[in-house]
Amino acid sequence: GNFVSHSLYLHTVEGVWPLPQSFTSSTERYPLNPKAFYFGYGRQSAAQQDCSVLDAAFKRYFSLIFPDYTSGSGDKPFTVEIRVDHADCDSYPNENSSERYNLSVSAGQASLNAETVWGALRGLETFSQLVYQDDFGTYFVNKTEIDDFPRFQFRGILLDTSRHYLPVQAILKTLDAMAYSKFNVFHWHIVDDPSFPYQSRTFPDLSSTGAFHPMTHIYTQSDVRRVISHARLWGIRVLPEFDSPGHTQSWGKGQSDLLTPCYRGSTPSGTFGPVNPVLPSTYQFMARLFKEVSSVFPDSYIHLGGDEVDFSCWKSNPDVRAFMQKMGFGGDFTKLEAFYMEKIVNITSALKKTSIVWQDVFDYHERIPKDTVLHIWKGTPASYKEELSRMTKAGMRVLLAAPWYINHIAYGQDWRNYYTVQPLNFSGTEEQKKLVIGGEVCMWGEYVDATNLTPRLWPRASAAAERLWSDEKQTSSVDEAFPRLQDFRCKLVRRGIRAEPLHVGHCKHEYQGV
Amino acid sequence: GNFVSHSLYLHTVEGVWPLPQSFTSSTERYPLNPKAFYFGYGRQSAAQQDCSVLDAAFKRYFSLIFPDYTSGSGDKPFTVEIRVDHADCDSYPNENSSERYNLSVSAGQASLNAETVWGALRGLETFSQLVYQDDFGTYFVNKTEIDDFPRFQFRGILLDTSRHYLPVQAILKTLDAMAYSKFNVFHWHIVDDPSFPYQSRTFPDLSSTGAFHPMTHIYTQSDVRRVISHARLWGIRVLPEFDSPGHTQSWGKGQSDLLTPCYRGSTPSGTFGPVNPVLPSTYQFMARLFKEVSSVFPDSYIHLGGDEVDFSCWKSNPDVRAFMQKMGFGGDFTKLEAFYMEKIVNITSALKKTSIVWQDVFDYHERIPKDTVLHIWKGTPASYKEELSRMTKAGMRVLLAAPWYINHIAYGQDWRNYYTVQPLNFSGTEEQKKLVIGGEVCMWGEYVDATNLTPRLWPRASAAAERLWSDEKQTSSVDEAFPRLQDFRCKLVRRGIRAEPLHVGHCKHEYQGV
Repeated sequence: GNFVSHSLYLHTVEGVWPLPQSFTSSTERYPLNPKAFYFGYGRQSAAQQDCSVLDAAFKRYFSLIFPDYTSGSGDKPFTVEIRVDHADCDSYPNENSSERYNLSVSAGQASLNAETVWGALRGLETFSQLVYQDDFGTYFVNKTEIDDFPRFQFRGILLDTSRHYLPVQAILKTLDAMAYSKFNVFHWHIVDDPSFPYQSRTFPDLSSTGAFHPMTHIYTQSDVRRVISHARLWGIRVLPEFDSPGHTQSWGKGQSDLLTPCYRGSTPSGTFGPVNPVLPSTYQFMARLFKEVSSVFPDSYIHLGGDEVDFSCWKSNPDVRAFMQKMGFGGDFTKLEAFYMEKIVNITSALKKTSIVWQDVFDYHERIPKDTVLHIWKGTPASYKEELSRMTKAGMRVLLAAPWYINHIAYGQDWRNYYTVQPLNFSGTEEQKKLVIGGEVCMWGEYVDATNLTPRLWPRASAAAERLWSDEKQTSSVDEAFPRLQDFRCKLVRRGIRAEPLHVGHCKHEYQGV
Repeated sequence: GNFVSHSLYLHTVEGVWPLPQSFTSSTERYPLNPKAFYFGYGRQSAAQQDCSVLDAAFKRYFSLIFPDYTSGSGDKPFTVEIRVDHADCDSYPNENSSERYNLSVSAGQASLNAETVWGALRGLETFSQLVYQDDFGTYFVNKTEIDDFPRFQFRGILLDTSRHYLPVQAILKTLDAMAYSKFNVFHWHIVDDPSFPYQSRTFPDLSSTGAFHPMTHIYTQSDVRRVISHARLWGIRVLPEFDSPGHTQSWGKGQSDLLTPCYRGSTPSGTFGPVNPVLPSTYQFMARLFKEVSSVFPDSYIHLGGDEVDFSCWKSNPDVRAFMQKMGFGGDFTKLEAFYMEKIVNITSALKKTSIVWQDVFDYHERIPKDTVLHIWKGTPASYKEELSRMTKAGMRVLLAAPWYINHIAYGQDWRNYYTVQPLNFSGTEEQKKLVIGGEVCMWGEYVDATNLTPRLWPRASAAAERLWSDEKQTSSVDEAFPRLQDFRCKLVRRGIRAEPLHVGHCKHEYQGV
């Protein structure tokens, strides 16, 4: 796209964030009257009325497109006609779901075609961003042609509900904002050392003793269903993480003999380390827990963690040392970790789930099953590029998070760093590049809860969203992105998302809440 | 105070933030029943019923003390009896207002004595923080004796409404939160280069052309009165800043010939620099503007700015150069700046206002009138300590902001840096130390508007609040402060303030908004 001057282009397709893959737009514009504006299913659409996903989307997008209902004018009707190939209205989006759509806006009508309802959702988001109001309050949309699809299949956001508890409402609101930037995976880092808020049907003691509070700081089965169902209606997958064997201090409170007792000399010190990998009861527990998790979370992916295992407690424990000797691991505790992770991956494989693990697991253990996805979180651009090379050379699929640890804040426009990441700029063949399934923005919770989550996430995460959705060549200029992202941020504010400012300036409609 | 274990002390006086100067507390506790809880005026109190400040405070503090009204129990009445020496109910707090109070809590009664209603407000805040709920919802207060007063007279927060417009509601909410930390000055950096939102009676063009939007992004006279009146009821002074001669780009849009035309070679470049110091019309304009400002803002202080003047435009302008020659300033443009500031200070002196200026003015011009307050904003601890020494040695009063530029964010617990500042730890006599009137937390607006203001301010500003209110020796340990500040932060959240977390953990009542 050739970018025209600021005031003009934000009323055309360049005002869409993330930028569509292929488009032409025109200065020819059509007034929209909220009282004569309709969403409808095309006759050839596989999905028809009562398609839950699209019926709900029509309601949502009507409000998003016309925040100020009373100010409609013009009397010509305008219809957005949706046609999808598959009536996948009651399913969940998955790792193979097409999100491609085609949108054609002309006088009196927009045609939105997609293979799936998930693609139709992406197209509705785009359409909603094309609509604008003039100074007299009249809504307009310009003549536009868009053919659009994501560059990467996996575009995720991690929220950490263990270091701080996030009320369900804060998660739901984040899912809304994710859809506005076309994110499609909510990676729910639901438990960790500080707390275990997931209320397990099988092991209720895990949350009743491991949560910050057993009643007010938990996610009930009903809460989890609500999150999954809300995410589904936005075409967002929910990827649960139950990280082990490290990061499990809170698990130990409700499950005795799960964690390794640490020793000082020849006596237990009273503290506990990672999950105890030498007891058969550990794997029985994990098999039952993951069986439950697999049934509660419909996504075919499951995140097993495996990061940052501290070996000092294992080293101190005589039973662990005896087990090491028996297994012939010598003094190499990475082999013990690999042994443990292999058992856990086998448990989830048997449950027909694809495992994701943090990169540590591969770093220690290259024999990991080929369908496991490796999650890169460490290092500088130079070092994660080397990891990308090495892992894809080994034929492994990878997910890139390292450049998008967005919980790290700094003064100024750090979104520029998130925008200029080049996920495929590493040494490797075309086949290797195809193994990069996408990227993830991580919002770890040390300093984040519902009070500051939204302004820390948005619009900084949106910078990564465009990198993961749009064509890299068309979005190579961070300076050209700047006014577009400013405009998009004002759209978020207008939609009630407390997205923080990028720099000095203003939005036509400032955030009015307190 | 000797600090006892975490769970205990937060129910006693150590749970008050900022820490009172002198106190004893007891584990003896009294249940409070909201249905039999009364604020009253003591018979010897100068202020009696219909004292606007205190009547309003009683209403506010009743809600703050009993957020959960239904859960009262116990049938014994409890009365907080207020006695003040001066019935200054209809006045404004000023730079000499006593904030001292004495609070004595015993069975069935608390006695709150103060010289002024402003001191009574501080005591009410303290009392409200002493009340807690047990796990069954019953309210309690412990037997307590407190004698309290601020270490520094001036404890301010700067908000910048030029780089981003802050809706009035966001300012009012910030005033509420300021009172919770016993801040007593709102420094309103109301205009600057990017926008001029103050709607002047005398010069309406300044905002109609200089604001981001002439209708929606302005502060009307009524808005300003609302801010001043809300601040008064919390015992907070409103200090307006109209910064010149630099930082005035937005002024030029609505006031022709005010700014200096910059030259490229022998022709005007079309851009403008600082206020034009050589035209008599400049000073006529300033005299009229400051006359208005002096009557709109009741505080006896007025901030004149004077920082960061770029001399390049002045240098380029032939009229300015001719004036320099005429005045015998040679090539020293600091002399021209000093000339300008002296004229402005004289204007405000004639209006019976005390001027505050940024340190630049003193750095260039040591002849400044002795009653001017110098505002230190530059440098590292080493360099601002030297400034403190030098300025107080010259007999000038100073206000310290340099260590509290809280708009600068960093990952982690940067509140520790704000807490460990030692404002009087500079080389100088006791007399010099007395010239430090206080400190100010500055939230400059490059990256801040109503979406992220609150979580960036709180509880980071509260760290500075304790440094400015409490005894330095009693608050010398940042590690002892940590659990107290965590507890105070949860109190802010409970009061509906989106104060961000300090580290991993939880509040009994998490923020429930989205």
